[in-house]
Amino acid sequence: MTTVGILGGGQLARMMILAGAPLGLRFQLLDPSAESCAGQLAPLQVGAFDDRAALARFVEGVDVVTFDFENVPADSTQWLLDHAPVFPGPQALAVAQDRLSEKTLFRELGIPVPDFAAVSDRAGLDEALARIGTPCILKTRRLGYDGKGQFRIKSPADADAAWEALGAQAGTVGLIVEAFVPFQREVSVVAVRGRDGEFRAWPLTENWHVDGVLSASLAPARVDAALQATASAYAQRLAERLDYVGVFALELFCRDGELLANEMAPRVHNSGHWTIEGAETSQFENHLRAVLGLPLGETTMRGHACMLNWLGEMPDATAFLSVPGGHWHDYGKTSRAGRKVGHATLRADTEVALAQALSRAGQVLGRLGQVAPVVARLEEGGA
Amino acid sequence: MTTVGILGGGQLARMMILAGAPLGLRFQLLDPSAESCAGQLAPLQVGAFDDRAALARFVEGVDVVTFDFENVPADSTQWLLDHAPVFPGPQALAVAQDRLSEKTLFRELGIPVPDFAAVSDRAGLDEALARIGTPCILKTRRLGYDGKGQFRIKSPADADAAWEALGAQAGTVGLIVEAFVPFQREVSVVAVRGRDGEFRAWPLTENWHVDGVLSASLAPARVDAALQATASAYAQRLAERLDYVGVFALELFCRDGELLANEMAPRVHNSGHWTIEGAETSQFENHLRAVLGLPLGETTMRGHACMLNWLGEMPDATAFLSVPGGHWHDYGKTSRAGRKVGHATLRADTEVALAQALSRAGQVLGRLGQVAPVVARLEEGGA
Ligand SMILES: Nc1ncnc2c1ncn2[C@@H]1O[C@H](COP(=O)(O)OP(=O)(O)O)[C@@H](O)[C@H]1O
Ligand SMILES: Nc1ncnc2c1ncn2[C@@H]1O[C@H](COP(=O)(O)OP(=O)(O)O)[C@@H](O)[C@H]1O
Ligand SMILES: [Mg+2]
Ligand SMILES: [Mg+2]
Repeated sequence: MTTVGILGGGQLARMMILAGAPLGLRFQLLDPSAESCAGQLAPLQVGAFDDRAALARFVEGVDVVTFDFENVPADSTQWLLDHAPVFPGPQALAVAQDRLSEKTLFRELGIPVPDFAAVSDRAGLDEALARIGTPCILKTRRLGYDGKGQFRIKSPADADAAWEALGAQAGTVGLIVEAFVPFQREVSVVAVRGRDGEFRAWPLTENWHVDGVLSASLAPARVDAALQATASAYAQRLAERLDYVGVFALELFCRDGELLANEMAPRVHNSGHWTIEGAETSQFENHLRAVLGLPLGETTMRGHACMLNWLGEMPDATAFLSVPGGHWHDYGKTSRAGRKVGHATLRADTEVALAQALSRAGQVLGRLGQVAPVVARLEEGGA
Repeated sequence: MTTVGILGGGQLARMMILAGAPLGLRFQLLDPSAESCAGQLAPLQVGAFDDRAALARFVEGVDVVTFDFENVPADSTQWLLDHAPVFPGPQALAVAQDRLSEKTLFRELGIPVPDFAAVSDRAGLDEALARIGTPCILKTRRLGYDGKGQFRIKSPADADAAWEALGAQAGTVGLIVEAFVPFQREVSVVAVRGRDGEFRAWPLTENWHVDGVLSASLAPARVDAALQATASAYAQRLAERLDYVGVFALELFCRDGELLANEMAPRVHNSGHWTIEGAETSQFENHLRAVLGLPLGETTMRGHACMLNWLGEMPDATAFLSVPGGHWHDYGKTSRAGRKVGHATLRADTEVALAQALSRAGQVLGRLGQVAPVVARLEEGGA
């Protein structure tokens, strides 16, 4: 019997458990909240990620440790390493936790990035603006997610407001300025690397964000094969440099046919949820196969898929379930403004059928705005 | 929050929980064994199916009751009905629990069956043999499963041995004699009927049994469309007569192009396990959708699929997982001779690719004998 320990007990852990049970795996969770939704399916230790006693209880009997939450303190990961293998490893986590180190690494690996500059004080912000120009974005280096910890600077006149919003964090999580990229598309590569170095990427996914939070994902992205190959090659280069083990996502902007790396997420990723129904092997199963040293499953598509995120509260399942190829994912959470409470995936054999199913879903749920950009993309001529 | 109560906590309940969690469902189980494998994923009440106190604890807070084990005493089902809706209903269960009443109903509905006769004493056995002829099979009317409670009678000279084996059960579970059918194939229709009467069937599945226990299933079965349509029509007729709600399987023999009904199982069925990866909606999800009154999902195929049953102990997962399109299902049980401990499904886009994957699986697991009849079927000319 193999037990996998997961730091974090949210929806990512929950979907890992659902993918891992058929592999005969048991799970053990650590999360500060007793209400963590993955706790409905596996034993949950309640405790902070830096609480040694909680970590000790958590790791007891665990064969391998992984994450549904990447901002675990480096000290904790280091301590856990004395008790069980931890994948992805501390080095990969450290790089991915810091926007400055990840962008520096991307550049070093020849992966194009938007221009960026570290900012440590108010004068540094002015220097960065002078060098990078506007529009640009001031972001916290650490702990940002779902668009949080960001301030958009349209012109140098916004510098004071930006500093007022985030300046206090210069000395704690650190700050970075990035050039604003007027992209035509956002895409992500979700990929997996095994303990033995085997690498596989799922087809490129196009993503739409609303207020910095993922709203919809379409796979395969309607891009040419060369762009797909370039994106996969970037992901592989990154994984090899970091000796990465497990699933990760590399988010990219696509501007005038060129790819610019935005960030990497060292874990299963929201833009890979469609793989549950849309790929031969889901990101959740392949993550587990990877961290356990098992052979990786195929990452090929089964038709075309679109994922729609549900924020705040779940829409009406009954209305949705009559849509052909509609698959529902309720994370078992209570409603709260902006909270990721679930998603749905529509799967179809053709792009035409997928566009139809999406329009129908948009109609029955009263969410035509959410599906519109995806339908428009599917209805564009050519690929 | 909706809670589904399941009578029985084996692998069928376990796979229902895995399919139901994404629908936001919670579960509650009742099973006589504290080791029930579904108890790894949901709260388990330990108690006998006829223990009123256990039934009362089980049904507390449950919104609907269903089964992973159909031989629940009629009294218990009746008692539960005062506390929660129960699907499938007691009438359907009663018919399916008794080989005599199910065969009588099949015949009444114009569904062909092998010749049969009830047997209540030793003289009755002789009369039945005289009327039906040999070879034939003496079976218990109730509580038989996986080929248990059966005695094959090759010639009238076997009558004494048959009576010695099963005669004592004539007064308890009852006995029936059935003509032996020299079939070319065994097939099953797995189908679902909603609370509103909506009916859907998955493509016909061909099944191979070893010692009365399912060994392999292939979907879609390589039969012509007319046979498929006839089988579905039989299943629909049966479901409508029983006002059936949920998933069920109708097992049929195929002899010289004619279908003869063998038995029905009033629950999700081993010959439908391939639907997890091979169909748009799995039998487990559609069963839950049906009993909850939700719209049914599509039962269309995604390519071609073959399920292999693992009896006694699990084969080597690591070897298997390198096979393309290979999906593993370990039920989390301890090994025991003959016990259903898991299964694997191979899925591929074409029959040729499926045959290749099956041969490879047979090789790496040292189980060429188990895959051989399926590979042979896939390699036959025509469909
Ligand atoms: N440099 C940029 N240029 C244009 N848009 C950006 C830029 N950085 C972020 N965004 C937008 O904001 C979203 C969230 O920002 P991101 O840096 O990915 O942070 P998070 O960690 O919150 O996902 C991006 O997906 C993109 O839509
Ligand atoms: N009348 C019959 N003629 C030929 N084979 C039979 C007959 N009845 C049963 N069998 C064989 O035995 C298997 C198990 O019998 P079945 O009646 O389905 O009992 P169980 O409830 O154990 O599944 C069948 O799938 C079939 O292979
Ligand atoms: Mg991002
Ligand atoms: Mg049978």
